[in-house]
Amino acid sequence: MLRTPDQYVRSLQARSLVLYVDGERVADPTVHPRVRPAINAVAATYALAHDPRTRELATAQSELTGARVNRFTHLFAQPEDLRRKLELQRVLGRLTGTCFQRCVGMDGINSLFIATFEAGGEHHERFVRWLRQVQRDDEVIDGAMTDPKGNRNQRPPQQPEHYLRVVERRPDGLVLRGAKIHQTGAANSHQILVMPGMAMRPGEEDFAVAAAMPVDAPGVTMVLGRQPSDERKGGPDAGNALYGGQEVVILFDDVLVPWERVFLDGQLPACTTLVEAFAGFHRASYGGCKPGNLDVLIGAAALLADEHGVRRASHVRDKLVEMAHLGETIHGLGLGASSKATRHESGVHQVDPLLANVCKHHVTRLPYEVVRLAEDIAGGLMATMPSLADLEHPEIGPALRTVVGSDERARALRLVEYMSYGAGSVPLRIECMHGAGSPQAQRIVLERRIDWARRVDAARRLAGLPAREGDDADDRRLDHQIAAAGQPEAAATK
Amino acid sequence: MLRTPDQYVRSLQARSLVLYVDGERVADPTVHPRVRPAINAVAATYALAHDPRTRELATAQSELTGARVNRFTHLFAQPEDLRRKLELQRVLGRLTGTCFQRCVGMDGINSLFIATFEAGGEHHERFVRWLRQVQRDDEVIDGAMTDPKGNRNQRPPQQPEHYLRVVERRPDGLVLRGAKIHQTGAANSHQILVMPGMAMRPGEEDFAVAAAMPVDAPGVTMVLGRQPSDERKGGPDAGNALYGGQEVVILFDDVLVPWERVFLDGQLPACTTLVEAFAGFHRASYGGCKPGNLDVLIGAAALLADEHGVRRASHVRDKLVEMAHLGETIHGLGLGASSKATRHESGVHQVDPLLANVCKHHVTRLPYEVVRLAEDIAGGLMATMPSLADLEHPEIGPALRTVVGSDERARALRLVEYMSYGAGSVPLRIECMHGAGSPQAQRIVLERRIDWARRVDAARRLAGLPAREGDDADDRRLDHQIAAAGQPEAAATK
Amino acid sequence: MLRTPDQYVRSLQARSLVLYVDGERVADPTVHPRVRPAINAVAATYALAHDPRTRELATAQSELTGARVNRFTHLFAQPEDLRRKLELQRVLGRLTGTCFQRCVGMDGINSLFIATFEAGGEHHERFVRWLRQVQRDDEVIDGAMTDPKGNRNQRPPQQPEHYLRVVERRPDGLVLRGAKIHQTGAANSHQILVMPGMAMRPGEEDFAVAAAMPVDAPGVTMVLGRQPSDERKGGPDAGNALYGGQEVVILFDDVLVPWERVFLDGQLPACTTLVEAFAGFHRASYGGCKPGNLDVLIGAAALLADEHGVRRASHVRDKLVEMAHLGETIHGLGLGASSKATRHESGVHQVDPLLANVCKHHVTRLPYEVVRLAEDIAGGLMATMPSLADLEHPEIGPALRTVVGSDERARALRLVEYMSYGAGSVPLRIECMHGAGSPQAQRIVLERRIDWARRVDAARRLAGLPAREGDDADDRRLDHQIAAAGQPEAAATK
Amino acid sequence: MLRTPDQYVRSLQARSLVLYVDGERVADPTVHPRVRPAINAVAATYALAHDPRTRELATAQSELTGARVNRFTHLFAQPEDLRRKLELQRVLGRLTGTCFQRCVGMDGINSLFIATFEAGGEHHERFVRWLRQVQRDDEVIDGAMTDPKGNRNQRPPQQPEHYLRVVERRPDGLVLRGAKIHQTGAANSHQILVMPGMAMRPGEEDFAVAAAMPVDAPGVTMVLGRQPSDERKGGPDAGNALYGGQEVVILFDDVLVPWERVFLDGQLPACTTLVEAFAGFHRASYGGCKPGNLDVLIGAAALLADEHGVRRASHVRDKLVEMAHLGETIHGLGLGASSKATRHESGVHQVDPLLANVCKHHVTRLPYEVVRLAEDIAGGLMATMPSLADLEHPEIGPALRTVVGSDERARALRLVEYMSYGAGSVPLRIECMHGAGSPQAQRIVLERRIDWARRVDAARRLAGLPAREGDDADDRRLDHQIAAAGQPEAAATK
Repeated sequence: MLRTPDQYVRSLQARSLVLYVDGERVADPTVHPRVRPAINAVAATYALAHDPRTRELATAQSELTGARVNRFTHLFAQPEDLRRKLELQRVLGRLTGTCFQRCVGMDGINSLFIATFEAGGEHHERFVRWLRQVQRDDEVIDGAMTDPKGNRNQRPPQQPEHYLRVVERRPDGLVLRGAKIHQTGAANSHQILVMPGMAMRPGEEDFAVAAAMPVDAPGVTMVLGRQPSDERKGGPDAGNALYGGQEVVILFDDVLVPWERVFLDGQLPACTTLVEAFAGFHRASYGGCKPGNLDVLIGAAALLADEHGVRRASHVRDKLVEMAHLGETIHGLGLGASSKATRHESGVHQVDPLLANVCKHHVTRLPYEVVRLAEDIAGGLMATMPSLADLEHPEIGPALRTVVGSDERARALRLVEYMSYGAGSVPLRIECMHGAGSPQAQRIVLERRIDWARRVDAARRLAGLPAREGDDADDRRLDHQIAAAGQPEAAATK
Repeated sequence: MLRTPDQYVRSLQARSLVLYVDGERVADPTVHPRVRPAINAVAATYALAHDPRTRELATAQSELTGARVNRFTHLFAQPEDLRRKLELQRVLGRLTGTCFQRCVGMDGINSLFIATFEAGGEHHERFVRWLRQVQRDDEVIDGAMTDPKGNRNQRPPQQPEHYLRVVERRPDGLVLRGAKIHQTGAANSHQILVMPGMAMRPGEEDFAVAAAMPVDAPGVTMVLGRQPSDERKGGPDAGNALYGGQEVVILFDDVLVPWERVFLDGQLPACTTLVEAFAGFHRASYGGCKPGNLDVLIGAAALLADEHGVRRASHVRDKLVEMAHLGETIHGLGLGASSKATRHESGVHQVDPLLANVCKHHVTRLPYEVVRLAEDIAGGLMATMPSLADLEHPEIGPALRTVVGSDERARALRLVEYMSYGAGSVPLRIECMHGAGSPQAQRIVLERRIDWARRVDAARRLAGLPAREGDDADDRRLDHQIAAAGQPEAAATK
Repeated sequence: MLRTPDQYVRSLQARSLVLYVDGERVADPTVHPRVRPAINAVAATYALAHDPRTRELATAQSELTGARVNRFTHLFAQPEDLRRKLELQRVLGRLTGTCFQRCVGMDGINSLFIATFEAGGEHHERFVRWLRQVQRDDEVIDGAMTDPKGNRNQRPPQQPEHYLRVVERRPDGLVLRGAKIHQTGAANSHQILVMPGMAMRPGEEDFAVAAAMPVDAPGVTMVLGRQPSDERKGGPDAGNALYGGQEVVILFDDVLVPWERVFLDGQLPACTTLVEAFAGFHRASYGGCKPGNLDVLIGAAALLADEHGVRRASHVRDKLVEMAHLGETIHGLGLGASSKATRHESGVHQVDPLLANVCKHHVTRLPYEVVRLAEDIAGGLMATMPSLADLEHPEIGPALRTVVGSDERARALRLVEYMSYGAGSVPLRIECMHGAGSPQAQRIVLERRIDWARRVDAARRLAGLPAREGDDADDRRLDHQIAAAGQPEAAATK
Repeated sequence: MLRTPDQYVRSLQARSLVLYVDGERVADPTVHPRVRPAINAVAATYALAHDPRTRELATAQSELTGARVNRFTHLFAQPEDLRRKLELQRVLGRLTGTCFQRCVGMDGINSLFIATFEAGGEHHERFVRWLRQVQRDDEVIDGAMTDPKGNRNQRPPQQPEHYLRVVERRPDGLVLRGAKIHQTGAANSHQILVMPGMAMRPGEEDFAVAAAMPVDAPGVTMVLGRQPSDERKGGPDAGNALYGGQEVVILFDDVLVPWERVFLDGQLPACTTLVEAFAGFHRASYGGCKPGNLDVLIGAAALLADEHGVRRASHVRDKLVEMAHLGETIHGLGLGASSKATRHESGVHQVDPLLANVCKHHVTRLPYEVVRLAEDIAGGLMATMPSLADLEHPEIGPALRTVVGSDERARALRLVEYMSYGAGSVPLRIECMHGAGSPQAQRIVLERRIDWARRVDAARRLAGLPAREGDDADDRRLDHQIAAAGQPEAAATK
């Protein structure tokens, strides 16, 4: 089944979700002005699966069921799937101008497939059964990884209240307590797939749990995170007319998960595999969606430059080129990471972990410069313009409209504001910084993955230093052969 | 008279200001949650004039009246005044964490003193009389320069509706029509001092007007500009507990200004002088307030690092040092520009225009990196945390407070959010970019002020190329003398 | 035939090349200390074709001859060839620490294959015959594109002396006059393949010529370009013990080229195709060799950090990670450009031109930062250390060796110096800047290749602006469908 | 006495210096092609003292002798002296395009004046007597601070051979053994003033020594450091026609220093004072000379842009403006540091240590970008052009001159090469990086000097967090006063 947007939204209405927004329980999230834009962004992932232009890209044939499924529930069975994922993400990023919230689930599914394969036995079988259901029902999965973590100097057992953990193992299932934060799109999902957010050590088995549950399971409570200017949503100054991102805190108050939905329970090596696999997949994902988001910002800046009458000014053209250059850099690095795919023995293909981290690490920097340049081109009015409601006011409206100049200018300014420091800046800037791991997380992986010895060996050899044990003897042999080439003695001894 | 904060706020209540906020006319701005924080920031400039710690810094002895006046109404009569201005701005920037709104008036007063001095005669005398009154009454002056400007490719006469201009000259005064935008603190002022925002050419005399009027003069209407998350002001998620910035659009609907308050009316050279003097003063001003604002952001990041338990992590310390380094860079450049003060024949001291532009140009870049680093240290929760109201909710509050960890963390996150992409980001980021001229404006001045010929001469000489006409013959003479030093023939011919 | 290094060097000895170095005619370049290091670097491309570790990577099966040929004479017949090229370049860049000089030929061959295919007829046939010979003899081809160009504001016919051009067409061939500059490895080649360096316009046919000739054809004179510290080559302070780069000026003094070796003669569209295809190929190539060169520099910095005792200092580790991150960025972008290969109807695969330019544009920036960080880690002694000869001096040597500390430190400092501002800085820094086109050349292509309209359309739609003609009507249809999803009326009308 | 350049060079000839260059003892350094350019640069400091244009700037009235002395031997007796120092350095930097080598001595003299003042008694008196002689004879003082230091993890007593130290205290004086590296201009000096290069701890008294001796004292041996392309000096490709920098290793083989020339011997606090004072002075000094050097590079780039016919191209103008902007940034920060002068009780004025470090820290970054942009504008020919000797060759010269285009282009390219990666790159790039302390040294000082608590206090207050002990109670009092202003109860209670 490939749901339509309408079927998707109706399925959300069928849930009995416990969701709070600014201290109020929300009855129907699908009509709440602070929630609906985020639902719309997810709905776009369903729409593209039916659109003739994108049907091929947005769906894939499942290896598990043989049916055509939404790509967001699909395993990376072919190297090509990694590249298509990125292209689909870019299309969606440009279509919605925000986060469409299904990537954590997709990357989590693939990671857990690998991890449970390594854990073996019942774990993997349960997971495959569950995944078949997800594909069949075309569900949105909230991949729930990040624990609150408290003091970064303490391990989970020292501060269990800051981690999701197993508090009881009963015949009918596990009982989970704690919280997950930064839950992208959680309130727009059908199921929560909890996973450990970091590698666990012996003695920390209770924190090494992966399991699935409906979003409205008893004991699950969600609280919507605030975004800058979120009160503008649904109003004239919203910026993005239709779409939005979403981050949620999920509280787990002794939630019972039946064993059939428990995929990891204390398997530490599999937990490490999971975390590393996810980091790779998800850091490359930013090479898809963020360039798409930046396309919108670049377009808005180009539009404003036109409205200001400076679109052909050399410094403006130069800034626009720079913005696009930086956006493409991220995309190119995502593609580069994907092009060096390797096949895990489970059958899932993985990205190059080094390049995936390189990609994400640039995502923590380059979009900030793109935003800075957009603010430069947009001009100060972006931050000093009265409400668009004022422009419609019977007394002051006409004069204000002269001040602002055109509807294009007014609305494009609001869009740039939205993406630079309005609600859209959370999916854009902050997600760029902290999504899939903060900058230092990438640097740690980079330091670990770089082959320093190989570089030092090359330097020693070229500096004319003697070989060390374990050195690149073959390279030195080549050196000698080359140094001797063409010399009289070489003719004799070659 | 040196007003107290209380006297200042009461003086605002005595006005009959026409101010709109989101389409509603505001009766008393001093109690409006969207306006009061900005009034508080201005009030701080009055408070410091009475505080024993800062009295010396915040006031000065007027050359006009002999009395002690607030520094914001003072002329830069001594070179030292330029440096003290910067230090006062830094103290206020750190005290309020936002824009305190009196600098445009101060820099405008000094610029107009110079310009009317050059225009001569009655112009200067009127201005001095007016300035004496301003000093005596310790008023807030809204320096109103920026016109909407419409299409940047067209001059004012081609699109007069986008500029403030004289539409009638009557025996009792001038009649002004049009608008001014980006009016910092206008709704918290006593008088508007309109000035031309750019050099005007022959035929554009109607746009070359400088004049003063009460903020509640008939025909003056103000509309408050929106800021990101401005609806949070006064609530638990405001970020900055007390202070705020303000930008206003002012509409002038045939406002009559008596001749006694008209300081320039078509004097084109004086208008150019005014614009250039103001650019110098105001671009250096950013070397005062912005480092002060950044102090707050750096402090908030350091506080959060402590709360996260990573304050001693080397990468965090490194980022904090970088942030402070960049903040001090701006301050150092402001001081550098001020240290090369030159005395205008009117008696006012001017900053070095080249270095003032260098200072401001960095302000369009470096604070963006400081903000980026603050967001890095702050962590993703800054953008995903529910409302502080949720933390007080009887049902979900306790669990959420565990998630967030501490009141320090929650409130410091809101403060970073405020300055990075909340209401405070307008004084911080956008003001950095566009206040006192957008980046390209500085580059144009830089290109004009750099002595290219001198650099090319030096290069030619050192490259061994022959002298050209108008060249540095003296430097070449030194070269020859040095080349010959210590040589036998040199002994003979020296 | 796959030549060995020895066979290659002997084949160079068999030429009667006219080569000047510092005003002296060189009899045997293969033993000249300023030339031999560059020959060694080319010899490495031959050595790898025989090394069991790299044989697969360094050779390919020719589509033209069916034989195994050196990859540097191979056509990109499969998408995979583009990726393998990059990987081979990286291995060679790390092995030699410099430019190995065969890439311009390889990229030129592929470009000319495409261009002559488009020109059609005899042009392509001649070229294929010639290429078969090149593959069979495993020759080094000097791809000669860049004309001196003189004043950049003038076209070739205004200053023909600054361009290579046809001065006569005779029955037995063309006569060429002029010069080519920046000729990488020319003195180490077997043939020169001249190609136009830019698109030509009607009336400029005499400058649109592609043709091949032996490097020792009558009328061909080469003059070696200087490199920083080139006089150190072959001595104790050389830095790179074995390898070097090479740039040559070639003077063409009425060189006759038989028609069989003329591949383009005034075919303007093919000339444009050639230039654009080459730019794509060659700009991606920098994603191969430069990361390899940087590996050496990074290795040298890591080695020095060890010697200084600061390898574990957090700021040093951070700098090393940054250096590697930037090197991998370039490599990842080269791979990204290659992963979007498209097949030209001639059968040759082309890289994505947008990403190839993004890749090269970063090459004009990032290696500079890597070098800066290397200089930071290396320490000032890199630039103040006496000659390594001094360290062997009987009187001062012992004390100096104590000062320097170790042979590792001394030699690694010389290597860093070599790559940062010695002879190796020309292949590294300057080649990064200007090779395959200076930065502005990439910006021009980027501006042309970016789909601005698509970005503006997305911005308009999301800003809530009405559709324009030619707009993305389908995207707007999706928007409407999504906005209506789940609503009562939607149920009715869907 | 104010020596002339001729008198200065002759005074050098009168020494019996032991100097090695590339393993050879040099008889008369003043005619050695590798040494003379550096002597010329020092001679410029003498020439300016006589030039009517700069006499005032280049000299000062001594507080010690009452006579007019060269500024390089002068104490910073007035705040203005700090600014004048910077301006003189900039003039010299532009005049010579390189390091003029007298600043370490000048900054060392001032630091030691302060340090010996604190040490008190005979130490200071001896130093003042010595300084009077230096001023009277107008000598060049080599300030010798940097020890080889060996492994950075070990203190001096663990590896004494890597530090200059007292090995004997005799009735007639101290005996010194060891070495100093990075000795700027040592071979062009009259006296060596050794000083400790870092703060010493109890037990390290033998390393805390400051003393003066003639450069030709028995036991002193100098070895010239290599510079890139140093063999070009004196030839056609030198780049800088007249001037050069110099770095020397000095070996001290049991050098006897009479007590009258010993200024510190184990006074640890004074040693710390010395090191910190010197760091401040010398880090600000880079705000003088380096902008002057960069002026030359910028001039050369502008000249080349003219020759290429692209001087008016917008991207070229933009790059030139950026280069100048960065150069002025450094100068502005040096001025800023100098404008906050404080008077030490000895009477010497000190720069602001925080801003001095900010200044120098930018010097380790910004000039690298200026060089990068210069290489961009210069074009690849800078690195591929044959020797200027080739251009004069009877056979190939004429054609090569056509290729190169003009003498302006050829020579300006060599000048850019000289400053970017020739001999001049050592004074420029490497000195920028490591002179007066490597980047990390500045970061350590910055971290120590920043008032973190003050920033955190401001953040806590504005975030609405309660006061802590030791907090800014006064600021909170102001907050309350401001919050209450204009409120009815305020009227009652004020």
